Amino acid sequence: MSEMIRIRMDNGSVTKEKLSNDEVRIGGRALTSKIISEEVDPACNVFGSNNKLVFAAGPFAGTTVSCANRLSIGGKSPLTGGIKESNAGGNVAYKMGKMGIRGIVLEGVPTNKEIQILYVSKDRVELVPADKYQEMTVYQAAEALREQFGKKVGLAIIGPAGEHLSMAAGIGCTDNEGRPSRYAARGGIGALMGSKGIKAVVFDDAGAKGPEIADKEKFKAAQKAITQEILNNEQVAETYTKLGTPGMVNITNSMGALPTRNFSRGSFEKADEISGQKMYETIKERGGEGNPSHSCMPGCLIRCSNVYADASGKESVAPMEYETIGLMGSNCGIGDLDTIAKLNYACNDLGLDTIDMGGAIGIAMEAGLLEFGDGEGALKLMEEVRNNTPLGKILASGGQRTGEILGVKRIPACKKQIMAAYDPRAIKGIGVTYATSTMGADHTAGQTIRAALEHTKPDKQVETSRQAQVINTMIDCLGFCFFTGSGINKKFEMMADLMTAFDGGECSLEDLKEIGRDTLRMEKDFNIRAGLNESDDILPEFFYTEENPDAKTAFDISREEMQKIFTLE
Amino acid sequence: MSEMIRIRMDNGSVTKEKLSNDEVRIGGRALTSKIISEEVDPACNVFGSNNKLVFAAGPFAGTTVSCANRLSIGGKSPLTGGIKESNAGGNVAYKMGKMGIRGIVLEGVPTNKEIQILYVSKDRVELVPADKYQEMTVYQAAEALREQFGKKVGLAIIGPAGEHLSMAAGIGCTDNEGRPSRYAARGGIGALMGSKGIKAVVFDDAGAKGPEIADKEKFKAAQKAITQEILNNEQVAETYTKLGTPGMVNITNSMGALPTRNFSRGSFEKADEISGQKMYETIKERGGEGNPSHSCMPGCLIRCSNVYADASGKESVAPMEYETIGLMGSNCGIGDLDTIAKLNYACNDLGLDTIDMGGAIGIAMEAGLLEFGDGEGALKLMEEVRNNTPLGKILASGGQRTGEILGVKRIPACKKQIMAAYDPRAIKGIGVTYATSTMGADHTAGQTIRAALEHTKPDKQVETSRQAQVINTMIDCLGFCFFTGSGINKKFEMMADLMTAFDGGECSLEDLKEIGRDTLRMEKDFNIRAGLNESDDILPEFFYTEENPDAKTAFDISREEMQKIFTLE
Repeated sequence: MSEMIRIRMDNGSVTKEKLSNDEVRIGGRALTSKIISEEVDPACNVFGSNNKLVFAAGPFAGTTVSCANRLSIGGKSPLTGGIKESNAGGNVAYKMGKMGIRGIVLEGVPTNKEIQILYVSKDRVELVPADKYQEMTVYQAAEALREQFGKKVGLAIIGPAGEHLSMAAGIGCTDNEGRPSRYAARGGIGALMGSKGIKAVVFDDAGAKGPEIADKEKFKAAQKAITQEILNNEQVAETYTKLGTPGMVNITNSMGALPTRNFSRGSFEKADEISGQKMYETIKERGGEGNPSHSCMPGCLIRCSNVYADASGKESVAPMEYETIGLMGSNCGIGDLDTIAKLNYACNDLGLDTIDMGGAIGIAMEAGLLEFGDGEGALKLMEEVRNNTPLGKILASGGQRTGEILGVKRIPACKKQIMAAYDPRAIKGIGVTYATSTMGADHTAGQTIRAALEHTKPDKQVETSRQAQVINTMIDCLGFCFFTGSGINKKFEMMADLMTAFDGGECSLEDLKEIGRDTLRMEKDFNIRAGLNESDDILPEFFYTEENPDAKTAFDISREEMQKIFTLE
Repeated sequence: MSEMIRIRMDNGSVTKEKLSNDEVRIGGRALTSKIISEEVDPACNVFGSNNKLVFAAGPFAGTTVSCANRLSIGGKSPLTGGIKESNAGGNVAYKMGKMGIRGIVLEGVPTNKEIQILYVSKDRVELVPADKYQEMTVYQAAEALREQFGKKVGLAIIGPAGEHLSMAAGIGCTDNEGRPSRYAARGGIGALMGSKGIKAVVFDDAGAKGPEIADKEKFKAAQKAITQEILNNEQVAETYTKLGTPGMVNITNSMGALPTRNFSRGSFEKADEISGQKMYETIKERGGEGNPSHSCMPGCLIRCSNVYADASGKESVAPMEYETIGLMGSNCGIGDLDTIAKLNYACNDLGLDTIDMGGAIGIAMEAGLLEFGDGEGALKLMEEVRNNTPLGKILASGGQRTGEILGVKRIPACKKQIMAAYDPRAIKGIGVTYATSTMGADHTAGQTIRAALEHTKPDKQVETSRQAQVINTMIDCLGFCFFTGSGINKKFEMMADLMTAFDGGECSLEDLKEIGRDTLRMEKDFNIRAGLNESDDILPEFFYTEENPDAKTAFDISREEMQKIFTLE
């Protein structure tokens, strides 16, 4: 039976509790949001003793089901002030599942300023003094932690940004090879971990035997069905596996949806230079450590991740994702993958969200601190962050506050979180998601780009976003990856079959969707109690007043219209 | 008959409209809040074309009634995101009243980045190119403007901080002698003026003959009654006139209410060194340009203002107020009036609110950038602001954002505005005002320190704050100074008598209070539509969890209890 572990940071006490029968299906985002919603005062100081940080694995974590080992990390967000779940690939949730741990909750705040490591194995939960790790970068810390705790452990680490309580700080999680670069990046969740005085959580699953499964044969069959569906899916092979998320560049560019120069345009003249095709060819051509098709999680068959190598074939950064390219590339006018790779690496190393940092750099460019397209200048800004200068601190607080401090009027953020790499005027459904999501401007909260409707027209976008939000939330609750839907050709019943076999009760797709809806309701309720209301469910004014010249339209769905999302069935 | 002037910043068009009969009593805060509430989209970008900046004089402006020439400046606040009225003494409202101008509304935003001067005389309203004024400090600009427009004009000026859209930027207004240091300081109203591209408004009342008064004899009699009441008030002479607002230092210090070291204590070991008594003695001893009893407005008999001189007798800054001493002095651990005077001057010169800047510097000290008590270090921080460095930009954005950027958990602000110099644990009524005021943490929004109740107990504080908020709002609406109530021994009927004589209709005190209540209702409604709700009507968590060791109590009035303020009759 799975268990929950709670650690009090003020006195170091550890308690364990078994999941009840009712809770067997509750994992991932369903679990983080349930705990935050039920146990955290929405009015609390995000860095105070009343906020909690929750790590949650999905129900299927620890199995080798493809795409089912995402890790959810939640809390009251330092960035948005609302509820937050940020999820990451990598091997952490897998190891949690192996150890039979569904969730870990960090409660309270330490009484002194010393930082600690939280070590978790199947037999032991322990806080370890970690003075020497203070101010270490994420890559440095990963290496030192493996030295201290063994090469096979999974890690969730914050960088200096998290220690400094910077609001763009994320949490880096290890991938299959131990790179700490699978990020739960958004919402300042790394700063929340910093406030708990925890530099890293070490997941040591040695000797662990995996989750209990009610009907193993049935489970095997359900898993096999998913495997077959993905392996037979040629589109997945052609796009996700070969090009990965960067394959999106050409698509959004042609739609006028690729954020360019602080969301002033939707097409970028150098899109070809930063496209998935270009990346694939570059990686292939350079050889060496590069790899265009890489699994970030144990068991993943889609392999949309990549290892990007420099001209000498040496690993430059892994992975380089579409969102990073869109925000740190075109959004900054930077049309060169090698430069973007360096910016990406710097964010990973310092423990920062590439989306909010790309937004912040684009805003600094709009403020005139440097020119759009100045890659060297952007790298210098990352050095400011590394040196923790005042300018670095501004940037590390994310795009919203960077804009406020620098006096920039055009800030592409919702609920203070910078938008992902889809211009909401060109893809209006995701605009509705940005505006109404409990999470702030987030693409995984309700992606509509693949929906069959006219993306530049306002019609049916609210309904489309709502459906996407329910499905995406369901996926987050199950610990599945966002791409599973494409992988299994939207045959979501397969997930229900898996659940039926897993816990032995009957489970329908409708049951799973209801977990998603319940989670959204809890999150919305938390946000309202936290003071985020209707007036926060809107896009920044300039999307309404400035036409996107490449999509040839402004955003034109009113707040009133978008509010209907909360009453639609 | 009084008139309203509207100027569109996008095309320079000017329109004038006469006040209707119904509007004769509507001035000051009643007018700014009415216009903002009725005409501004609460969801608008504060620096965008839909926000408006309103200058409003009280009904009695332009007469020599004591304390009746305050100037209200309003808009959607860049700092709080809610409605804002910030008022100042000085001679601007007097000159508006002389010219028969009740209000001036700046609408839209300029289409280019050039800055302009708005010149207003009885016959002419004109936008004048002002390139040479760009980046001028407030004192420099005042001198240059007097050179250009004549020595007798009244001025409302922003400094570099307002031009940079810094959220702690205020608007400096000239006093009787032309010093541009009577500040409408709060809520970032100077940044709003900056976004309108207006460096200064010049008020040239040459040849103007003053407001129309319905019954001049009656008015004279009512004015005489007020004059007598103030002149016969010995307490006013002993405290306000002699010691001015700094007389408050000893009072709050003894109550444990004097903010000390970022609101960690309520008494300061060097309080004697920064007290009103000390200031009075220092000014007297030094002689020269110093003056302990100075009128900031035409006609003022209370003369609580002062001119503080340095050791050589040369004017150092005028005025130096209690709030500045509390925030830039004790709150920063600085116990030396000469240093505080320099910090005060720097704020005035750069166009910044001393309260939010004192809060920001205290927070920087808590963050470890410098030690508490380091006056030289604080002055260096003001140099950072002057040089517009990244650190300077952080500080000029006010205390809330400084704390967020520097990772400080204890930020003494409500609705993002730093508290005035009264610890809300020691004076709980003002704590209720800070939490529930439409304006954010503001002492003039509802001061309870003189109410007859136990200030450290929670009982009756909500009711007391409410009464104070109504009376204080009424006073703001009439263009009266906050101190008038003490001056006339709370015989507020005198204001009603003045109004009866002024407009010829019968006016009761209840009528005037209703103007205050109406204004509060409009403001609250605006804030709700702007997204500021119940969860914003609260003090920061640490006031609930940390006892003020000098007042020996924490804040203990719940959000639910405070919400009753909106339903009390």
